[in-house]
Amino acid sequence: MAPQTEMLLFAAARAQLVAEAIAPALQQGRWVVCDRYVDASLAYQGVGRGLGIETVRRINAVATGGLMPDLTLLLDIDVATGLRRARAESEARIPAASGARGSGDRMEQQGLAFHERVREGFLDLAQNEPHRIRVIDARGSVAAVQREIARVVEEFLRGRERGPAGEASG
Amino acid sequence: MAPQTEMLLFAAARAQLVAEAIAPALQQGRWVVCDRYVDASLAYQGVGRGLGIETVRRINAVATGGLMPDLTLLLDIDVATGLRRARAESEARIPAASGARGSGDRMEQQGLAFHERVREGFLDLAQNEPHRIRVIDARGSVAAVQREIARVVEEFLRGRERGPAGEASG
Repeated sequence: MAPQTEMLLFAAARAQLVAEAIAPALQQGRWVVCDRYVDASLAYQGVGRGLGIETVRRINAVATGGLMPDLTLLLDIDVATGLRRARAESEARIPAASGARGSGDRMEQQGLAFHERVREGFLDLAQNEPHRIRVIDARGSVAAVQREIARVVEEFLRGRERGPAGEASG
Repeated sequence: MAPQTEMLLFAAARAQLVAEAIAPALQQGRWVVCDRYVDASLAYQGVGRGLGIETVRRINAVATGGLMPDLTLLLDIDVATGLRRARAESEARIPAASGARGSGDRMEQQGLAFHERVREGFLDLAQNEPHRIRVIDARGSVAAVQREIARVVEEFLRGRERGPAGEASG
């Protein structure tokens, strides 16, 4: 599959997710928690596949109508440990012989250098938007990572309560 | 399906078609004849769906790497006759009850106003690029339309032979 095809298919899926699920939920005043979004395409397709962050950003802006999260949690870990965990997780869930692995595999099957580029891409995004993207150290135990996420989310919510009138009511 | 999703899926298919079929064929010096391409998305999704020609053009430029045809034939006909022919063609090919109609149907099922916008979109594109896009009157018989296409293609080829050195050898 050409890198452009992959990127456009993710953008198409995201356009439909926004139109069908995210935008209606926000319209009803609900909170939306989402696993992967535009930043994932910027890092994986923009940096990892080398299509360029600005190209991928422009296409995703069309897909999402410019809708971006208020808060993004980036669970960061060194590539070797991250891949080891992902593989252990997949093997625990699905017998190795079934061939029925999820779509994450297109990415997991890439080499170490690809994942190093993607990680640097994510960390650069976080550096450029430190208020929106908070980096969570994911090396610890599940409990430790959960505690850190709770701390960051609570800090974010306190910031909204102190924020301009109208925002706190969301 | 959201209009953005539809447009991005067509762009994804086109990206793969260019990478897998069109670019390699051109690389080998072969001629490529293609049914629908970027102009179809400009007219259907840009004008018909109202996404805007420039938005659709930018996304398709990423999908195709900017590759555009040397000559485009626009077979033009009034909407009522065009839809009547398309339906007769579909019914002749596929039994009405089978439900196995092709992807053209998403478009054929739209109303007259949609198809009028699309036709105007195509004709505007032709007006803006009269050398690349040649309008063929498709009201006549198959034989008459074939003759007109042959005339336009021969004229195009004579133009290339007279063109700058290097172009004639393609």
